[in-house]
Amino acid sequence: MCGSKTVPLLIATLIFLLAGAASAQASPDDIASDQTQECLGCHEVVTPGIVADWLKSRHSTTTPAQALTREPLERRVSADSVPEGLREVSVGCFECHGLNPEKHKDNFEHESYQINVVVSPNDCKTCHPDEVEQYSESKKAHAIGNLRDNPVYMALVESIIGIQTVQDGKLVPHASTAATQQVACFACHGTVVEVDGMRTVETAMGAYEFPNLTNWPNQGVGRINPDGSRGACTACHPRHGFSIEVARKPHTCAQCHLEPDVPAWNIYIESKHGNIYASEGYQWNWTSVPWTAGKDFRAPTCATCHIALIVDTEGEVLAARSHDFGSRLWVRVFGLPYSHPQPVHGSISKIRNADGQPLPTTFGGQPAGGGFLLSKEQQAERRQIMQGVCGACHGTDWSTRYFDRFELQIAEVDQSVLAATQLMEVAWDRGLADPANPFDELIEKVWIRQWLFYANSVRYAAAMSGPDYAAFKNGWWYLSENLRKLEAHLKH
Amino acid sequence: MCGSKTVPLLIATLIFLLAGAASAQASPDDIASDQTQECLGCHEVVTPGIVADWLKSRHSTTTPAQALTREPLERRVSADSVPEGLREVSVGCFECHGLNPEKHKDNFEHESYQINVVVSPNDCKTCHPDEVEQYSESKKAHAIGNLRDNPVYMALVESIIGIQTVQDGKLVPHASTAATQQVACFACHGTVVEVDGMRTVETAMGAYEFPNLTNWPNQGVGRINPDGSRGACTACHPRHGFSIEVARKPHTCAQCHLEPDVPAWNIYIESKHGNIYASEGYQWNWTSVPWTAGKDFRAPTCATCHIALIVDTEGEVLAARSHDFGSRLWVRVFGLPYSHPQPVHGSISKIRNADGQPLPTTFGGQPAGGGFLLSKEQQAERRQIMQGVCGACHGTDWSTRYFDRFELQIAEVDQSVLAATQLMEVAWDRGLADPANPFDELIEKVWIRQWLFYANSVRYAAAMSGPDYAAFKNGWWYLSENLRKLEAHLKH
Amino acid sequence: MCGSKTVPLLIATLIFLLAGAASAQASPDDIASDQTQECLGCHEVVTPGIVADWLKSRHSTTTPAQALTREPLERRVSADSVPEGLREVSVGCFECHGLNPEKHKDNFEHESYQINVVVSPNDCKTCHPDEVEQYSESKKAHAIGNLRDNPVYMALVESIIGIQTVQDGKLVPHASTAATQQVACFACHGTVVEVDGMRTVETAMGAYEFPNLTNWPNQGVGRINPDGSRGACTACHPRHGFSIEVARKPHTCAQCHLEPDVPAWNIYIESKHGNIYASEGYQWNWTSVPWTAGKDFRAPTCATCHIALIVDTEGEVLAARSHDFGSRLWVRVFGLPYSHPQPVHGSISKIRNADGQPLPTTFGGQPAGGGFLLSKEQQAERRQIMQGVCGACHGTDWSTRYFDRFELQIAEVDQSVLAATQLMEVAWDRGLADPANPFDELIEKVWIRQWLFYANSVRYAAAMSGPDYAAFKNGWWYLSENLRKLEAHLKH
Repeated sequence: MCGSKTVPLLIATLIFLLAGAASAQASPDDIASDQTQECLGCHEVVTPGIVADWLKSRHSTTTPAQALTREPLERRVSADSVPEGLREVSVGCFECHGLNPEKHKDNFEHESYQINVVVSPNDCKTCHPDEVEQYSESKKAHAIGNLRDNPVYMALVESIIGIQTVQDGKLVPHASTAATQQVACFACHGTVVEVDGMRTVETAMGAYEFPNLTNWPNQGVGRINPDGSRGACTACHPRHGFSIEVARKPHTCAQCHLEPDVPAWNIYIESKHGNIYASEGYQWNWTSVPWTAGKDFRAPTCATCHIALIVDTEGEVLAARSHDFGSRLWVRVFGLPYSHPQPVHGSISKIRNADGQPLPTTFGGQPAGGGFLLSKEQQAERRQIMQGVCGACHGTDWSTRYFDRFELQIAEVDQSVLAATQLMEVAWDRGLADPANPFDELIEKVWIRQWLFYANSVRYAAAMSGPDYAAFKNGWWYLSENLRKLEAHLKH
Repeated sequence: MCGSKTVPLLIATLIFLLAGAASAQASPDDIASDQTQECLGCHEVVTPGIVADWLKSRHSTTTPAQALTREPLERRVSADSVPEGLREVSVGCFECHGLNPEKHKDNFEHESYQINVVVSPNDCKTCHPDEVEQYSESKKAHAIGNLRDNPVYMALVESIIGIQTVQDGKLVPHASTAATQQVACFACHGTVVEVDGMRTVETAMGAYEFPNLTNWPNQGVGRINPDGSRGACTACHPRHGFSIEVARKPHTCAQCHLEPDVPAWNIYIESKHGNIYASEGYQWNWTSVPWTAGKDFRAPTCATCHIALIVDTEGEVLAARSHDFGSRLWVRVFGLPYSHPQPVHGSISKIRNADGQPLPTTFGGQPAGGGFLLSKEQQAERRQIMQGVCGACHGTDWSTRYFDRFELQIAEVDQSVLAATQLMEVAWDRGLADPANPFDELIEKVWIRQWLFYANSVRYAAAMSGPDYAAFKNGWWYLSENLRKLEAHLKH
Repeated sequence: MCGSKTVPLLIATLIFLLAGAASAQASPDDIASDQTQECLGCHEVVTPGIVADWLKSRHSTTTPAQALTREPLERRVSADSVPEGLREVSVGCFECHGLNPEKHKDNFEHESYQINVVVSPNDCKTCHPDEVEQYSESKKAHAIGNLRDNPVYMALVESIIGIQTVQDGKLVPHASTAATQQVACFACHGTVVEVDGMRTVETAMGAYEFPNLTNWPNQGVGRINPDGSRGACTACHPRHGFSIEVARKPHTCAQCHLEPDVPAWNIYIESKHGNIYASEGYQWNWTSVPWTAGKDFRAPTCATCHIALIVDTEGEVLAARSHDFGSRLWVRVFGLPYSHPQPVHGSISKIRNADGQPLPTTFGGQPAGGGFLLSKEQQAERRQIMQGVCGACHGTDWSTRYFDRFELQIAEVDQSVLAATQLMEVAWDRGLADPANPFDELIEKVWIRQWLFYANSVRYAAAMSGPDYAAFKNGWWYLSENLRKLEAHLKH
């Protein structure tokens, strides 16, 4: 008989088994480099939150060498090999903040190490080259230039965020300030972060000399970094966990893609897909790579349709991973008065339309020629790729009908924008507004709302199925009411 | 002594115990019909997501025969018996898509089976007759006709979604298109799905002939199906898990019941009830039937108050399940300028008010006679039922005072709509607007906002306790500002 | 050998171990007082939800005596000692509803006990004196008087919620009603709950006599209770779980702090902090006291920055707990046209500005003197405390730059409000509006929007990083468009 003696043994066994399961991942202490250990020594006290965050991350519990042993589809690193000094240690403080010092104008001596303040895509590229390569082609990577280098867009920007003072009962416009630019437009688009000498900062640990960064902090998708690279991986993979789970959840995209101008999140979350995510997403597997439709998740998030590597339950690839965010899209439904074929490249400020404007369509709706935009064939290919994602759950007939209806609907919405533009042109012709700057007068703002808020809403609603945004919430109610407002302005 | 030999035994035991727990539910493989197994053979590859979804559902792991052995209050099927062929197999692909072929105009031969594309309430009725019966009485089941067969409502619809073009600086109205109808109003209300011959679809598995469905896809609550039945159970129980958890969560209702016109979700989630749901709902039991107040959940969702079978911790019924969604409501707070007693039947387009309009109240606020609306006694009964739900947590004095205040508040809101209507009538009298179509001019749209957006918001806010929607978010701020706008229009 | 006999033993052991773990907390049955047991006897049947809620709470499973044995930082009670009769029993129905009967005008005989209907902060103070003390200094505790005793604010309130009727095509204003006050403004600010005799209520258990409470139910933060105390702890710790988890989650603050006037929730949830909370908050420890940055949570909620006791992973205090909600804030970004230093005390209706108004700034933006507002030094101290919270994750340089930019931005927003006010003054000067009541005319409402909706939005967006609210969603788009609207009004 073994009765009473079995109990402690049993407990010990359970503890052993549980401990064993946990130790399948390496302990951060064992694989962190000496340099990183030294960083942690102070930063556990100075910024404990980010240290704790990192300690829970995959970066702290894996080495690139281990990551490279995975089957290709299961890999989170896309490099074929990783430089020797980095290979056998975890991806720690020093491994990232000490990379490529020669390229970093923000490199400085810190506790006898040469440290970069801003880790950039060019650094992440060491292990994740495909992702950085793809991203660099995207509109996101060019989000600053696409705005700043486009005089038409900048006229719009200044009409919105420029300072206005009052003189003799009239408004006088002035240029916008850096603070407003950083808090508004460029918070999402990204700022230009440069180094302007050093500055002394009083900290809890005493005075320190740090590189004096301009337009900082910022985590916009198109940020230009002190090493000259474009983008901020942390826009979607927040420091210092760099979680795939966070990036796959729609709340990440919802930092910027919001109503009234880009209501992607708002429409997603009211869609059937959003309903299922909100209701049962807590049961899903958010970290598995590849991501298996049906098994790991039962409705798509933003990442599913636009970015992630998706496979079926037999491991067949339904969609390849791409960090070129628009690469599965064939039409662009916002950013301009009219929908239009996606640009062929993410840098779009060089586009010229038939009126010579740096815009993909004219104010009359004619798409730019010159090879700037996708051809009909390229559009068909892209749509095919997207329908491949739909195919995880929906038959071909379903998704074909769905996207046919979507294309009909955006054509109608474009017609509604055209009607508004025709009324606007009457106003310009009659001298009721000055077309020199087409964005700054009250009636012009009514016109802008037609496309920037209302047409965008209905187009997104048709793309992702959000009936409220098609109808009453910035949708057709507003499109038709707004036309009446424009018409009324003509009568004054 | 048994030391080292006990360990493997212990592990085996644990595995056995865990496996045993899991096998309390049947394995889908064992109970799926031969036909369903054949469906799965292809669809595991073609649409793996929905197969995986179904595999996790109760439908795949139970047979109707097993379901019928439950105690009455615990049953999810309301049929007393289920036809023989369906009784001992799981509720699989063929069991649903092969039902009642003679009634289905969308029935077609598919891989040598006769398959219906659209499973309808009439099919679900085989096991769930009470739910379908109740639903068929609801306004939801009549959501298409209630709109389409009401010329007043349709004038409003066309003023919103009708195409507008410009001629000589003036707007010219045209009829709305099918695409807009489907993307906007009828996405929620439902479309009429009919069969227009067959069509060939190129799929990943080659070319197939499918029934050519009109106005498809759609999952609106009032959808008219190819078998002539009304409704889409999938509006709330999404394919192919048909989850009770999803239907019980407020995100389901939030697909359609949204601001500005029906801000039920928006107000719920800002209420104390919504706060508790959002904060600790992840700990609750979302699948138990019946649903026990306090034990399974600690604050109500939409389903709790309006639909679900609720019991107390001793198993006493606090509210009986009803899929007639309005059956616990005594006043209707939206859909019209004025609040009014709930209609006695869900089909409301036959109502005639004192002005001969197909509306439950006149533009002056007088409720329709003729027995179309609940009597005072019927209203009192309904309110009693709702207070029974409140009684799970709130004393009678609390809920009585709460609903007394609600009734006072909606009367005041109605007064504010009346003021707007009186200003509107001045405009009509003075020829500032043409009452022939009371919905299409700018000033008329200002008037519509008073009731469709702002009065609705305050009424819902008073019903469910959402102070922001009573005050600044489409609430009293807007009611009073909007009256000033109407008044200003009279001065032009 | 012990094979088959070990299995049942093993199962029993597991059950024993699990049961043991659970019993670390006391069973409610063992520690509830006799009086509470008697309450439960009926209320388990009458209001089962709240009984079940309480049974899951810490109040039901701990005695104050046990709570007092905790290390100081781990304590949830701040009293040094607790009166004898309460010390050794759980915190049950009678312990709270039977306290301080002599102070409670709502005390009444109920089933032979003397019961208070409304448990107040003065009752909670028995165990939580520090929290109540701190709270009583806050603007929240004075939320009724700060509105009701300020004639300028009340003119604004009445212009919004006052009844309006129509006479000869013109609006006639009337006073607001109690119902609207309770449903709108005072739902959040709190109502004055007094006792007006007794009233008979028909319940499921028969007729009962209850104190006839005015303005009830209400759970506003500044509620004045029948015992004369101010506040409702249940505004954030909902009955009858009084959960710290709920209070720490942002959905609690989101009951009131919502767009368009106070968009704190809306901006938080679109921020990076909100993104991380929404994406991985379900994994965090929501109940530990103290709350450890990085270990227990990885991004802040409202409570983290404004209220909670935060420690680092070594147990060092980063921020002390304070229930004086504004005590870590140095500027006030809403509530007035212009941002201004936080008031030194939560009761602010006695402030007088240079124009003699009971407001912290003049309409021209000049802050009130007289020691009503924080000095520059006091502001600097407060900012230091807040940066201490940021320091859990962000370096000093980061948070310094962040708040420097914030201060620049609110100054610019104030300038935009000043421009609007200057246009408004032109209108007042020209007789286009009557400044006697500066809030009730249409053009005045345009002016109010500038500060109450749009300036507030950008200020909050700058404080918590919500780019959409800085740009298009009630942000700079609206600030500049609204200035054009004001300018246009001057031309009429």
